[in-house]
Formats: sequence, C-alpha cells, structure tokens
Amino acid sequence: MELKGALLFGQSGGPTSVINASACGVFQTAFTHDCITRVYGAAHGIKGVLDDCLYDINAEDRQQIALLRNTPSSALGSVRYKLRDAEDNETDYLRILEIFQKYNIRYFLYNGGNDSMDTCYKVGKYLTEHNYPCRIVGVPKTVDNDLYSTDHCPGYGSAAKYIATTCMELSLDGRVYDKGTAVIIEIMGRNAGWLTAASAVASYAGQGPDLIYLPEKPFSIEKFIDDAEVVYARKGSVIVAISEGIRDKDGKYIVEYASENDRDMFNHIQLGGVSGYLASIIKQRLDIKVRGIELSLMQRCASHLASERDVEEAYQAGAEAVKLAVAGSSNIMVAFNRVSNNPYRMVITPVSLEAVANYEKKVPDRYIKDNFIDESFLDYVLPLIEGEAHPPFINGVPQFAKLRKVIAQVD
Amino acid sequence: MELKGALLFGQSGGPTSVINASACGVFQTAFTHDCITRVYGAAHGIKGVLDDCLYDINAEDRQQIALLRNTPSSALGSVRYKLRDAEDNETDYLRILEIFQKYNIRYFLYNGGNDSMDTCYKVGKYLTEHNYPCRIVGVPKTVDNDLYSTDHCPGYGSAAKYIATTCMELSLDGRVYDKGTAVIIEIMGRNAGWLTAASAVASYAGQGPDLIYLPEKPFSIEKFIDDAEVVYARKGSVIVAISEGIRDKDGKYIVEYASENDRDMFNHIQLGGVSGYLASIIKQRLDIKVRGIELSLMQRCASHLASERDVEEAYQAGAEAVKLAVAGSSNIMVAFNRVSNNPYRMVITPVSLEAVANYEKKVPDRYIKDNFIDESFLDYVLPLIEGEAHPPFINGVPQFAKLRKVIAQVD
Repeated sequence: MELKGALLFGQSGGPTSVINASACGVFQTAFTHDCITRVYGAAHGIKGVLDDCLYDINAEDRQQIALLRNTPSSALGSVRYKLRDAEDNETDYLRILEIFQKYNIRYFLYNGGNDSMDTCYKVGKYLTEHNYPCRIVGVPKTVDNDLYSTDHCPGYGSAAKYIATTCMELSLDGRVYDKGTAVIIEIMGRNAGWLTAASAVASYAGQGPDLIYLPEKPFSIEKFIDDAEVVYARKGSVIVAISEGIRDKDGKYIVEYASENDRDMFNHIQLGGVSGYLASIIKQRLDIKVRGIELSLMQRCASHLASERDVEEAYQAGAEAVKLAVAGSSNIMVAFNRVSNNPYRMVITPVSLEAVANYEKKVPDRYIKDNFIDESFLDYVLPLIEGEAHPPFINGVPQFAKLRKVIAQVD
Repeated sequence: MELKGALLFGQSGGPTSVINASACGVFQTAFTHDCITRVYGAAHGIKGVLDDCLYDINAEDRQQIALLRNTPSSALGSVRYKLRDAEDNETDYLRILEIFQKYNIRYFLYNGGNDSMDTCYKVGKYLTEHNYPCRIVGVPKTVDNDLYSTDHCPGYGSAAKYIATTCMELSLDGRVYDKGTAVIIEIMGRNAGWLTAASAVASYAGQGPDLIYLPEKPFSIEKFIDDAEVVYARKGSVIVAISEGIRDKDGKYIVEYASENDRDMFNHIQLGGVSGYLASIIKQRLDIKVRGIELSLMQRCASHLASERDVEEAYQAGAEAVKLAVAGSSNIMVAFNRVSNNPYRMVITPVSLEAVANYEKKVPDRYIKDNFIDESFLDYVLPLIEGEAHPPFINGVPQFAKLRKVIAQVD
C-alpha cells in the first residue's frame, strides 16, 4: 500500500564515524522513490522536530550528500533528549504530530542507540494510536555495540578498527625505551566492553596490550597491580587496555576513586581519567615510568581509518530502512543478522522496536578471560573491521561533507 | 677513498611514525655497497654500544626490513642518554672506541633530534682525535620539527598530518550537540609550536580549531577565557588547540598551575594535562560542557595515517646518509633544503654536525597571529603532509615489521 508524503530523518545520541554513511544511504535511496515527495533532516534529532527546525535535504548538493558516506559525526546535529511517556505528559507528542502534519511527514527514520530506539518506539505508538499514518523505522548506530537484537551495530566496526590499530601503534611506541614503561590505554564503554575487547586484535597480531579489563567483570586494583607486576617482570614493559567503565566488586566505578582523591575536581578527571588514576598507582607501587592515555573522542570519529565493511553496512542500514518503510513496514528497527562467518554473510532483518528499546547487550562471558580476551572473540570481531574506508583527501587532509542546511519552509 | 668495514645504525630520542623508514633506507642502501662488510643495529641507541648489544641486521628477513618503511616507533629500541664531554669523563668514549674496534665499525649513522646530533658530534670529534677512521653521519628526526639548519625534519609531516586530520574529525564531533561545547585539544611541543600550528590546516579547510596557542607567545589564562567567550557567543561552540608547552609571561608552564592545584600529584597531570586544566577553568567560568583531549603518543606513532612525502623523505635521508658516508663525508648531518614550493622540490644537503647540535628552531613570528596561525604557514606545511602512506593491512589491522634481533657475535 503506497503512502505518499515527506520523509524525515534524524540523528541522535553520540556520533560515530559512520552515522553519516547511514544518512547517505537514507537520502540517496529516498530520492529514488516517487512516493517520497520531499526529504527533510531534523536539526539535532527530535529537538529539531519540537523546535520546527528541519533542513531541506532536496536543496543539498548531491556531491556533498555523497561525501557524507565518509564524513564522521552527525551532519544534521545530534541530541540527547529522552521523551517522557505520552501518558505522563502529552506536550511533546502533540507538537510532534503538529509538525508531522505541517510538513506532511509520512516516513520517519531515526538513527541512534538505545534511547533513540525508545524515542522511535514512543513516537510510533503515539501516531498509531492517533491514526496518523506514518512509517517509523529505527536505524541502529552506536560505537558501544550494546544494542539488543542485532549481531552488531554500525559504528562499532570502525571504532574497533581504530582501537586495534592504535593499540598496535601505542604498543610499539610504549616499549621503545631501555627503561621499562607502563602504558594504560583507556577506551570507551561505560557498561559494555565491546570496544575495549577490540584491543585484543592488536595483541593477537603480536603487538598489543598485555592485559585487558572490561566493565563486565569486577575490577580489583590490588589484583591489577599484581597482574601488571608479573608482566613487567617478564617483559620489562606492560601495556594495559581498560574500559572507562571498570567497577569494583561493589559496583563502584574505579574512576570515582580518582575523583575522590582529586580535591579540586578537575573536569579532566570527571570526564574519564581512570587511566591516569591507575597510572599514578602503578608509578607509586612499582616505581616505573607510566603513561595514561585516553582514546577519547578520536575513537568514535576517526573516519580516516573506518572499516570498509562498517561503512558499507551503515549505508545499507539506511538504504534498507527506506525500502522497508516504502514497502509498508513500520515500528521496526533494521537489525543485522549474521548468517555465516566464513565467508562472512550478513542480512538485514527488521525487528520490533519494542523488543530493542532500553536493553543493553554486554560482552558474553565466553569471550572474557581473567585479564584478557579469549581468542574466539576474533571470529566475532575480525569480519567487522575488514577493509579500509576513508574519505577523499585534498591538500593532505580529508574532504568531509559540508551541507548547506537550508531551513525547510512550507506554505 | 674507500673505507672498508661495518656500518652501525642507531635510533635515539622519542620515536616517530617514520624513524623506521630511515632505518629501512639505511639498511637497504647499505646492503648494496661492497665496502660495507656488515650491518649492525644498536639496541637502544648509544646504550647498545656501551652495553655491547648490537643486532645483526644481515640476519634479518629482507621482507621485514621492507616493512620497516611503514612501521612506527623505533624498531631497534631508543634511548635518552646524553654523553658527557670527553674532557670531563672519557669512560664512555673509551668504551665506544673499544666496541667500534671489536666490530670493525667504520660507518656510524645515528638517527635522532638535538641530543642525538650532539652525541654524533661528540663521538665523531673523539674518534677523529684518536685517529680511528670512521664516517659519522647524523640522520635527523623529530616530530617537534625544532632541529636547526634543516627546512623541516622527518617525522614532523606525518605527525602534522595526523594532527590536522584528527582536529577536523574532532571539530565535527565537538560541534554536534544543540547544547554548546568547548573542546580543548592538547598537542605535543614543549618549546616549539610546529605541531600545534598544524591544527590550522584543519581550520583553513573549514573544519578546525577556532583558537590556536603556541608556546612561542606568552599565554594568559584571562585572555584565553575572553577569546573563548567571544567565539562561543558567535558559534555556540569553541574548539581550541594548545601546545602542551604554553607558558605565561613569566615563563612558567601553564601545566604547572594544574599540578599545584592537584594535591595528590596525579601522574596524569604531570604528563600533560594542560587541556584538562583549561577545560576545568572554562567550565567554571563559562558554565558550558567541556572536554580536554590529549593527542598523547598517538600523534607521533600513527603510521596508519603517515604523510607519503614524509615517509619518502625519511627513507631518502637514511639512504643518502649511507651514500654520503661511503663517498667520504663525515661529521655531518643530512639536512633538508627546500628549493621551491610550487612545485615542491627538496634536496638533501650535508651540514656540519657542530652547527646543528643543541639549537632549537622555533616557529617564526610571521606565522603566529594573536590566537591563531597566519595563512602563509600553509605554504610551509602543506607540501609536508602531502599524500597518504600506510602499512599493508591484514585482517583489518596493519602489518608492522617484526625483527628477529639476533645479537651480533664476532670471533
């Protein structure tokens, strides 16, 4: 059953290297469907809807849209805004309905992680209940890879590739001096250790961390010092990868200990800093040269070293979302279903939005060894970091998309 | 006049993305000269000589030597060791002479920055005075680009390219939310701001820092807050690049203020942390979201994004050093002389070691605007970051050289 009207696409949550690749897939595919009368981009996700601030994507240069494929971050702007339940407060929903009617939006595609799928789900439920025909499709993304009911998430592969590569480079750099060193590399992941686990790819390639700690297992500072001492005694250096979200057996974040010691409350430490804290402890206890390193935002925006497979899959997720919506699907998220590993084959499968929202997928026990990652994890992760994608380079630096961002007007 | 004997190569000082490219140039070129009877690599630079620990490079797999071209860090190990003057203490020099005689070393090539050229100079002077025929050639390297009497240094172009690219990516990531942010990016360079200046390439490409501060100019925290406030008022976000070595008008490092506030003396802050300190001040004063980011060791070892020109020039520096030594030159450093910019043309020119050692080249005034970099700097830096070099990738990650490191034995 054909539904004629405009398509609105929004980006939400933390940006990744490939969130714009999904945008590229959505836009380029939407342009090919006659039933889609106009393509809009929401400025800063759902906030742009509430503020009546939509960009007219039809007004964009097609070459800039093509460049989105390899441009990091969220070109339309992102937001962290959680819709309340409509039963508690209908204000936002009334406004969303008003704006959808104003622009005749009949396709709403939303790109993001857990919270964004929750937004999608709530909007879809409300519009259905109020008999406003609109096809709602969630497009997954998150570097954290913690989305439920999908084998993996767009954004993860590229971040994992950057982390593995950077850990190799840091391992070579960190072991260079005759006097031993401890290098502690802090990786994103508050509750799920998927990104930190990717550092093991470097280790299995022979040039990576000696010790890897995920937030899934309780972290003991004493045990950590013992582990580091054993490695250091053997190798004269120790390279450690830790997740920013490591916690002790009582569930307290290790970084909280750092903040407590830090009387002046440097923001630096609040915004991470567990690597610096552990480095200072290692220095005190083992009396060796230390360096705490945060991969910080680089790990989620280094599109110069994106995974080709990740970029392609992110693009396909956007393209398939449009195709499924046009074909009649709604209130779904496009999920990745890994059919086989050797050769790698993935099919995009729609899953119910209700099933996805607000669950977190952790790294399973079988992949986690005491202070390291089991080799079987490589079967999972290697296909996701396969191939090197990068933007075109001009004058030695990347050429990233620059959108005109013309504010949409309707009469 | 042909001199027959072994060649010894050593790596010294902080590693870079291309120090091994010079090693590759030295080794591959040395193998082609019959007068070079054997090729050794010093384990951890001059320390390996003093410890009688040399690697037999002839025993290495030629394919691994080829991989050195795109392998970051110092494959032979590095060292920070400053030789005393021979007049004050001859012990080290006697030992060096003994080892050179033991292995019949007639060619000594040493790769490094200011201190390493000083080592080269002193060793050369001593051997000459003691009538031990040996050709000494310094091969420059330093990410800091602060070596005297050369247009630029191998290692700088690749670090500059990584910094410019990463600043573009971080700028896109840092401006993504509807609520404004300040991102403060800390870049290496204790006394010279060449690396920090490279962030301006991102700005002139339209996606980079708004404010750039080098150590060459006195830094005022109050002025900085004003600058940031002006940008923030206009753009709703502010991206700042600062050199780790920024100092106030009295010459005191800004990072020292951070350490003073930090009663527990976290190492993290000692090892950098000026970005975190300034971020905390901005947060207090402007009440906006902040993020301090250190490019840390990544900026000097990211060979996955090396400058093709830098890699090629680093290789040529090593190759030319061998050729010049074989042809009879000694007590020189191979320097880069930029003949023209458009098209870029560089010739390698020998300069006296005495003229190089222990001087630091700062960023000239003409390139520095108040809180930014003059556009004319692009003429200098763009040719140095031209082209993308990277190692071969296998299973999604780089393939870096793995040397056997067979300890040399003589009868």
